[in-house]
Amino acid sequence: MRGRAVVLLSGGLDSATCLAIAKRDGLTPTCLAVDYGQRHRCELDAARNIADAFDAELMVVSVDLRSFGGSALTENIDVPKGRNDSEIAGEIPVTYVPARNLVFLSLAVAQAEVLGAQDLYIGVNQLDYSGYPDCRNEFIEAFGAAANLATKAGVEGTRLRIQTPLIDMTKAQIITLGTGLGVDYAMTTSCYDPTQNGKACGGCDSCILRKQGFEQAGVPDPARYA
Amino acid sequence: MRGRAVVLLSGGLDSATCLAIAKRDGLTPTCLAVDYGQRHRCELDAARNIADAFDAELMVVSVDLRSFGGSALTENIDVPKGRNDSEIAGEIPVTYVPARNLVFLSLAVAQAEVLGAQDLYIGVNQLDYSGYPDCRNEFIEAFGAAANLATKAGVEGTRLRIQTPLIDMTKAQIITLGTGLGVDYAMTTSCYDPTQNGKACGGCDSCILRKQGFEQAGVPDPARYA
Repeated sequence: MRGRAVVLLSGGLDSATCLAIAKRDGLTPTCLAVDYGQRHRCELDAARNIADAFDAELMVVSVDLRSFGGSALTENIDVPKGRNDSEIAGEIPVTYVPARNLVFLSLAVAQAEVLGAQDLYIGVNQLDYSGYPDCRNEFIEAFGAAANLATKAGVEGTRLRIQTPLIDMTKAQIITLGTGLGVDYAMTTSCYDPTQNGKACGGCDSCILRKQGFEQAGVPDPARYA
Repeated sequence: MRGRAVVLLSGGLDSATCLAIAKRDGLTPTCLAVDYGQRHRCELDAARNIADAFDAELMVVSVDLRSFGGSALTENIDVPKGRNDSEIAGEIPVTYVPARNLVFLSLAVAQAEVLGAQDLYIGVNQLDYSGYPDCRNEFIEAFGAAANLATKAGVEGTRLRIQTPLIDMTKAQIITLGTGLGVDYAMTTSCYDPTQNGKACGGCDSCILRKQGFEQAGVPDPARYA
């Protein structure tokens, strides 16, 4: 064992793949899921199942980002549907949650410091993404610098490393890698606007990127669509 | 009016002074207090009174840092008492809360982005401090860089500024400035280990720094000590 890691686990396919990678890398992962007031709360159940499948601890921390508002993922704003690739890659959409990855990473740093974990995995990816600024490599690098200056661990010389193994991969590559590492993608949920009984809408940016990824990977998508 | 600001308000004397400075600077402040599971919860009542006194909005956001553990401020660990100046300025104490300012600043960035505020005030200070790494200027600068890369606001060109007006001031200078700006320090609470009826212990690092500050400023300390 190379030591402990913190893996930010959202219940989606990217973070599930990250967890599989942390295990492959010989680390003992503790997963962190954030209950931030998201409308699609089945994410948290998915995170629990995924952590269990990889025999990893899961901590759920609550922070009420809904009280700030400003996003279709936390407020009663319509999630855009049926957008094409150039629309998805275009301007930052209403599903952007202000400073979400900044807040999530900060919480993960707090947990890493308490656990003595040096590696922190986050499943961001700057290729097949939805135009969120906090998924880009330049943000991750700047955050890592700040995190090491913020913490007792960083000051005392145990440098924290922000691991972004998916950052330059396509969704298809992620799915191919994760399938090889034993990720059961039936457990993952990607939809921004699932139905009451937990089916994916099939039309939001996240569903579209997921469906394209499975198609390109030549792997059947186990998601249940409405 | 120059616009809106977010002021991190802890209920202590530094952040109360920051709020007074934001008002002096002609900004419309929204205060953010964080309920992070602190043992000294009278802080939150103090924050409410201070915000009201300055006719400023207050938002309290909850995030359970206690679930991570690792600090005397959130766990049942004894708060050190009666330490001298060199002990206080020495190694990082057990009252350090892992990544606290990183988490608080990230939440403030989320709020600033939703409000369209460009200025974010935090009352850190690297002189009369308790050896916390996240109170140093180099951390604040690195965080500001990361925050501007993380957010839609930063990407679209509205640069967020992290304002640390107290960073190079002594406690005495802060108290002198705040007194001139009308801060009622009787409303503020500094103690890490107050009694059940809200009196300050007088012996923790924070009480000692406060008492020395008032003494050096030649201003009576209105805190009620046990």
